[in-house]
Amino acid sequence: MNKKLWSGRFDKATSPEVERFTASITFDTRLCKHDVRGSLAHVEMLAKVGLISHAELKRIRSGLKEIRDEIRSGKFKPGARYEDIHMAVEARLKQIIGAAADKLHTGRSRNDQVALDMRLFLREEIENIRTRIEQLQRNMVKVAWTNRKLVIPGFTHLQHGQPVLLAHHLLAYVEMLSRDSSRLEDCLKRVDIMPLGAGALAGSGLPLDRKYVAKLLGFTRVAVNSIDAVSDRDFAMEFLSSAAIIGVHLSRMAEELVVWHSREFSFVEIDLSYCTGSSFMPQKANPDVAELVRAKSGRLFGSLVTLLTVMKALPLAYNRDMQEDKEALFDAVDTLESCLTIMAGLWRKIRFQPASVREAMGGDFSQATDLAEYLVAKGCPFREAHRVTGKLVANCLRKKKKFEDLKIEELRSFSPLFDRGAMGILSHARGVERKKTSGSTAPTEVMRSLKAWKKKLGAGNA
Amino acid sequence: MNKKLWSGRFDKATSPEVERFTASITFDTRLCKHDVRGSLAHVEMLAKVGLISHAELKRIRSGLKEIRDEIRSGKFKPGARYEDIHMAVEARLKQIIGAAADKLHTGRSRNDQVALDMRLFLREEIENIRTRIEQLQRNMVKVAWTNRKLVIPGFTHLQHGQPVLLAHHLLAYVEMLSRDSSRLEDCLKRVDIMPLGAGALAGSGLPLDRKYVAKLLGFTRVAVNSIDAVSDRDFAMEFLSSAAIIGVHLSRMAEELVVWHSREFSFVEIDLSYCTGSSFMPQKANPDVAELVRAKSGRLFGSLVTLLTVMKALPLAYNRDMQEDKEALFDAVDTLESCLTIMAGLWRKIRFQPASVREAMGGDFSQATDLAEYLVAKGCPFREAHRVTGKLVANCLRKKKKFEDLKIEELRSFSPLFDRGAMGILSHARGVERKKTSGSTAPTEVMRSLKAWKKKLGAGNA
Amino acid sequence: MNKKLWSGRFDKATSPEVERFTASITFDTRLCKHDVRGSLAHVEMLAKVGLISHAELKRIRSGLKEIRDEIRSGKFKPGARYEDIHMAVEARLKQIIGAAADKLHTGRSRNDQVALDMRLFLREEIENIRTRIEQLQRNMVKVAWTNRKLVIPGFTHLQHGQPVLLAHHLLAYVEMLSRDSSRLEDCLKRVDIMPLGAGALAGSGLPLDRKYVAKLLGFTRVAVNSIDAVSDRDFAMEFLSSAAIIGVHLSRMAEELVVWHSREFSFVEIDLSYCTGSSFMPQKANPDVAELVRAKSGRLFGSLVTLLTVMKALPLAYNRDMQEDKEALFDAVDTLESCLTIMAGLWRKIRFQPASVREAMGGDFSQATDLAEYLVAKGCPFREAHRVTGKLVANCLRKKKKFEDLKIEELRSFSPLFDRGAMGILSHARGVERKKTSGSTAPTEVMRSLKAWKKKLGAGNA
Amino acid sequence: MNKKLWSGRFDKATSPEVERFTASITFDTRLCKHDVRGSLAHVEMLAKVGLISHAELKRIRSGLKEIRDEIRSGKFKPGARYEDIHMAVEARLKQIIGAAADKLHTGRSRNDQVALDMRLFLREEIENIRTRIEQLQRNMVKVAWTNRKLVIPGFTHLQHGQPVLLAHHLLAYVEMLSRDSSRLEDCLKRVDIMPLGAGALAGSGLPLDRKYVAKLLGFTRVAVNSIDAVSDRDFAMEFLSSAAIIGVHLSRMAEELVVWHSREFSFVEIDLSYCTGSSFMPQKANPDVAELVRAKSGRLFGSLVTLLTVMKALPLAYNRDMQEDKEALFDAVDTLESCLTIMAGLWRKIRFQPASVREAMGGDFSQATDLAEYLVAKGCPFREAHRVTGKLVANCLRKKKKFEDLKIEELRSFSPLFDRGAMGILSHARGVERKKTSGSTAPTEVMRSLKAWKKKLGAGNA
Repeated sequence: MNKKLWSGRFDKATSPEVERFTASITFDTRLCKHDVRGSLAHVEMLAKVGLISHAELKRIRSGLKEIRDEIRSGKFKPGARYEDIHMAVEARLKQIIGAAADKLHTGRSRNDQVALDMRLFLREEIENIRTRIEQLQRNMVKVAWTNRKLVIPGFTHLQHGQPVLLAHHLLAYVEMLSRDSSRLEDCLKRVDIMPLGAGALAGSGLPLDRKYVAKLLGFTRVAVNSIDAVSDRDFAMEFLSSAAIIGVHLSRMAEELVVWHSREFSFVEIDLSYCTGSSFMPQKANPDVAELVRAKSGRLFGSLVTLLTVMKALPLAYNRDMQEDKEALFDAVDTLESCLTIMAGLWRKIRFQPASVREAMGGDFSQATDLAEYLVAKGCPFREAHRVTGKLVANCLRKKKKFEDLKIEELRSFSPLFDRGAMGILSHARGVERKKTSGSTAPTEVMRSLKAWKKKLGAGNA
Repeated sequence: MNKKLWSGRFDKATSPEVERFTASITFDTRLCKHDVRGSLAHVEMLAKVGLISHAELKRIRSGLKEIRDEIRSGKFKPGARYEDIHMAVEARLKQIIGAAADKLHTGRSRNDQVALDMRLFLREEIENIRTRIEQLQRNMVKVAWTNRKLVIPGFTHLQHGQPVLLAHHLLAYVEMLSRDSSRLEDCLKRVDIMPLGAGALAGSGLPLDRKYVAKLLGFTRVAVNSIDAVSDRDFAMEFLSSAAIIGVHLSRMAEELVVWHSREFSFVEIDLSYCTGSSFMPQKANPDVAELVRAKSGRLFGSLVTLLTVMKALPLAYNRDMQEDKEALFDAVDTLESCLTIMAGLWRKIRFQPASVREAMGGDFSQATDLAEYLVAKGCPFREAHRVTGKLVANCLRKKKKFEDLKIEELRSFSPLFDRGAMGILSHARGVERKKTSGSTAPTEVMRSLKAWKKKLGAGNA
Repeated sequence: MNKKLWSGRFDKATSPEVERFTASITFDTRLCKHDVRGSLAHVEMLAKVGLISHAELKRIRSGLKEIRDEIRSGKFKPGARYEDIHMAVEARLKQIIGAAADKLHTGRSRNDQVALDMRLFLREEIENIRTRIEQLQRNMVKVAWTNRKLVIPGFTHLQHGQPVLLAHHLLAYVEMLSRDSSRLEDCLKRVDIMPLGAGALAGSGLPLDRKYVAKLLGFTRVAVNSIDAVSDRDFAMEFLSSAAIIGVHLSRMAEELVVWHSREFSFVEIDLSYCTGSSFMPQKANPDVAELVRAKSGRLFGSLVTLLTVMKALPLAYNRDMQEDKEALFDAVDTLESCLTIMAGLWRKIRFQPASVREAMGGDFSQATDLAEYLVAKGCPFREAHRVTGKLVANCLRKKKKFEDLKIEELRSFSPLFDRGAMGILSHARGVERKKTSGSTAPTEVMRSLKAWKKKLGAGNA
Repeated sequence: MNKKLWSGRFDKATSPEVERFTASITFDTRLCKHDVRGSLAHVEMLAKVGLISHAELKRIRSGLKEIRDEIRSGKFKPGARYEDIHMAVEARLKQIIGAAADKLHTGRSRNDQVALDMRLFLREEIENIRTRIEQLQRNMVKVAWTNRKLVIPGFTHLQHGQPVLLAHHLLAYVEMLSRDSSRLEDCLKRVDIMPLGAGALAGSGLPLDRKYVAKLLGFTRVAVNSIDAVSDRDFAMEFLSSAAIIGVHLSRMAEELVVWHSREFSFVEIDLSYCTGSSFMPQKANPDVAELVRAKSGRLFGSLVTLLTVMKALPLAYNRDMQEDKEALFDAVDTLESCLTIMAGLWRKIRFQPASVREAMGGDFSQATDLAEYLVAKGCPFREAHRVTGKLVANCLRKKKKFEDLKIEELRSFSPLFDRGAMGILSHARGVERKKTSGSTAPTEVMRSLKAWKKKLGAGNA
């Protein structure tokens, strides 16, 4: 058994199974570089305020940098005999520099230290995720641009609603993702707070300079209440909430890909390099990537529920329960990053199938709303216009006719307000073109939005 | 059966059980005032762009205002024969003003209309909730001020860690609540978007002026993609996430109240007007309010999971699934508002029990950290200082002594660095006073924070 | 304010807002008939063991029966001035029979009383739900029988895998539902436990005859530990778990209905009486029922999460938190019952579209596995057979050929093991027929299963 | 890139990032021994029905046994280049025995194979978990037996309710755990179903003998519908539900340990070998084990939510989404096993502190209910008795008296029904002894139950 750094009072060894059960080293090793980075800033400050000598600083700093190098080169492998990453780093430091290492933990508790590590970690990963969101947006914008003339059925209830531009549909996702990014940006404000100096919970009687540490580590703010600083996991809960919402968005996109890639729809062909086959059914080209992305929303929801449950009804300040924040958070970060990356890749190579789309739209009556609006523009009350076109649809269904085949006389037999102009609307593309509102599927609107996104994302060059 | 406004095509009546199953009128009635408000803005715009005449505007406007008055006076009771609140309002309008009502829905779909109603509702409720958060903060700040000298054990692992000021502990909650409020403020940015004009999903061929509607309704932005506008429920998911986190905070506060109100702790006495008794055990004064608040976190988590699940893997744009957003949202709003209000009331009358607190702290060794820090300040490495005080505690436990009873010689037998000054630290209050870091439990720090909050919240006058 | 039955010790009135906040009468009224039923059994027992006189029994019994009649006729409307249904019933009893009512609560606490009411309620509702499950199974079996020859694509990854009988596909749901029913039956064993006599938590010093009460109420077992009896909500958590799994099954069925009802699939036509239209797009026949059923899985998950969270980390025995079990449970019961019923109705009138199904299968290569198996039966190792048919598919894709169009020579050019017999397999129906394993889609297997279900469910006569 | 076994049709390599994203080998390696076991049974059957020769059987069998030995000795380390464990085992087999390995997958798909592996795994783990539940029960029963005379406050609302025996309190947990075990036993019925032979989804055209495979693997039943067999994850969802409920129970036990181990309660002393210290506060003996167990309920809830979400709205039959079942399931199994084991260890060494318990009960009025019952037994209506004792408590509080100090005259001044006998009830122990109902805290009842459990669990010998 490793001699515990906290065993002063204990006249009895911790049971080995308790050591295994309570250890976090198997997963918090992931925080090693953040732990070292935090320690580097901490000792600079200790020297600045005179709690360690300059000579001590030099030794500790050089030891920590050596560990940092070991981490970078993959040589730092703490092993299971340490309780957690903080102990492992300190023990390694002691191996390297000897007794001076005993001063590292001055004015610090693992309670504020782990809060710092987590915040450093998450601050970095949020930026990673936002970059990947942009990459996905960029690739979708390119597909939208390439297919900018393609009219598809706009769906509600998975039924053809009204014709829309594919680009308009894809940009809906780009908007969602942009909200995701703004949500993460807001979350970052509450991540970007420096907890060190809170000690175990009460602050410190030593003259620590918290602002200096914050400055060294690039934090905007210092935690203003030491009890809150060590008992707060809001930043993790808020991140997991944002992650869950991104999961929802990706699952919606994935669902559409699965459905549109089906033989019956055939709207898209996912590139074979992004499909997998079957060990049993050799003809299959399965959209497994989309399926897994869809499923992984469950994992993101699960992590959120995990942490909310962990935090429910915990008294202040630090409780060991809070150690259970890490795996949920790590898993969510990894899940998001891999899903965003793989989807960006999938969109890079996707191909739309205009012929299938056109075939699907033939005789789908999705021009009905445009016809109704045509009547409204001629002065017909909306409810009446809706009734008229409803009857027109019913009549066509009975006679097995498409809108596209109607003659002007037939139209007029339903309402005298129909005139030559109405004939144009019987084409799906025309319905798209005649839209007038901002944010609509009108080509001018969509092109304006597309160009704005291209400019913002640098989609031309990527 | 009520004749459906959308029944144009249908040659067959909807089954009555389907009507009941799909109807939302039993719960979306709650949106009536928002629905009317949205319609008032919509018709102003329709008149402005010439889609209805000024005479029609006047009639519709006056009819809608009559309905608004009926809502205010409680006379508007749509009953179960309407499918939803939109249909109920329009039907009532038709009763009042006749045929002109048929023009109300011009250029609008229930898809964008319900999105508008939800956003109007939530924008208002977020403000309500933020006000109630402030009220709770204000009442806690007052309790902190009243008891500003009281030293309590600062807990970690529900064990005495270090002495802290009660005010410091209470301000930790004030900080949490303030993050909650800032999170809601950020959420509001994504609620404050005007969806009308998106129509069913594609926008409109009519010359609707969306900015004008946004201006009339006080929205900062107009939704920039019509498909996104009707398929987006991010604002509700984000709100529910924030609500769940508030639920966590309230459950932590409630847990502490239950524990502190227990006979064994007796740190607080919840006023009898905020307790309930037992039908069976006459001696009980139960902290039911705190217990229910603690439990209601479950309800908030549940609503969040509900909506995340509903939205998982939904293709664009609108799907009927999304109707299931409302009850979860309404329940979360009500739960939050009632919990915040009742807790504000509870804190108004709470009494702390200094004698019990003092008794609990006697001989608790929670000064140990301060002793260790004392040694550190004298030049002892932290790890060594920790070991020394650990042995001191173990020794006292063996001899059944309190720190408070120690003589200087005893101290010195553990480390020659202990001197007269160390004796002062053996008092809990002194440990609090000697803290030096910003955000610590030092009285100067806590007073500064208390005053800042009093000023911000106007706690002096409330 | 209503004078509290437990106010003996209290020298101070409960705050009205606390009364409102803690009251459960707005929702537990639903338990009124169970509460009266439990009380009827309780007083019979009190008389049997001599704790009340026969005259008292007669009066109380007659009063309770009067309340029972009021409940049945809808006249019993307790109103918000009572704390809960137990208080409301007792108060009404006192109005009817006077002072004797004060003896009703002898040897009983609301802690064991509410546990009894909940168990009586759930026992009844589980039977209701199981009946509705059977009705849905019955209607699906009928559709399977009617379409028993119809071959459809068996999907994996929403791609055509192998041809299967529609009946086989539908029976997969019948199996799922049958597991649901068996799970509820198992749950019932843990619901069917009589808690009364546990008192507040410790049992009673009065000579109550618990077995007699259990017998009167038809319970199989008596709770064997009084503390457990009042702190246990396992039966509710287990029911909500089973409900969530049923929700999963219904959401899968609903998803398929939405997809199969899409224009692109057109495998089914949901009867118009089970569709709804659009206020904006007159041509739509939307599968709203299926969409709402799909969404309501979220609600069931939410209720489960709510109760799990409520119960997390609650110390023994009763805590007021547990009052939050009811709304979650009631909502889940209602959700399940309405979803099962509406789906049973939907299946009663559904029509499959063999022409669309056939068209979709043309050239889908879903016979590939059968071809591979044919080679295996001729002695070819499976992996080799898989490679051969994979190449065959690739070749057909390149040449834009269907399997159905292949000549024997073409087959043989891929493997000499192909002979005349292989030609038969190129038909989808033949692939179904040649299955040999139990539980497979072979018509004999499916017919055997269909007949077994028809017999079990009485589907012929319903 | 590893040449895919399913790549027949594919003229294009899968992208390496797709391979990584879709691979399950990093976690499903855990199923290796179940995979081999299933394959062994499968080939026995293939030989029995003549699909492979006896020579082939011998070779495959011997190769599989070699792999099994490699697994046991820890030499089998498939590495990340295989897609999943099934591919890895087959590839290793081919290395060992050459071409004959190509026949292993005859009549099998990974869809039914993975379902088999999961069921074999879970069947085994459920037994492990049930054994660990028994061990925990056994250790709690021993503590109950050792302290069988100890009277503690029975809590409701964390307030003293009525005195109870500690043994009675502990047996409440033993009952909960026993329900957990019975729930798992019921779950096992739905795990214990043999899916092989379902193929990809349709069954097989080869003459596979499914019953024979089931017999070899010890399954009670064969899956009766091949589509259901590959799309069903009920067994995993049901297990996770049961796991979540166990998590609730353990979190309640853990919460009590944390509270009872607090300085203020001091009811228990968790052995130092089951505590951990603080790196900062040397006096602490923290109940980290209990805290982590409490927290891990969150993880169990999270896994359940994950899988429910994954399965929501998945069309039949197999979808790649279902691969996401494994990590949630594995994590729940590990979490349960470690929590049950560590808690069993903790209870083995726990010590109760009768002195603290007695001190806490002094003057707690928890005898009030017994006094009320005394009056009831004398003929006083319950409601009246409750009022009388309520006033008695209020009077004592005012006069700062304990029940224990009351004189008979004082009692009689509140009700003439009080006589000498009532004086006995003023002792807590007497209140326990006078309980009469089955399942109550009466010593005879508790001893009967204790003995029954000791006999059932063999607690005497463990």
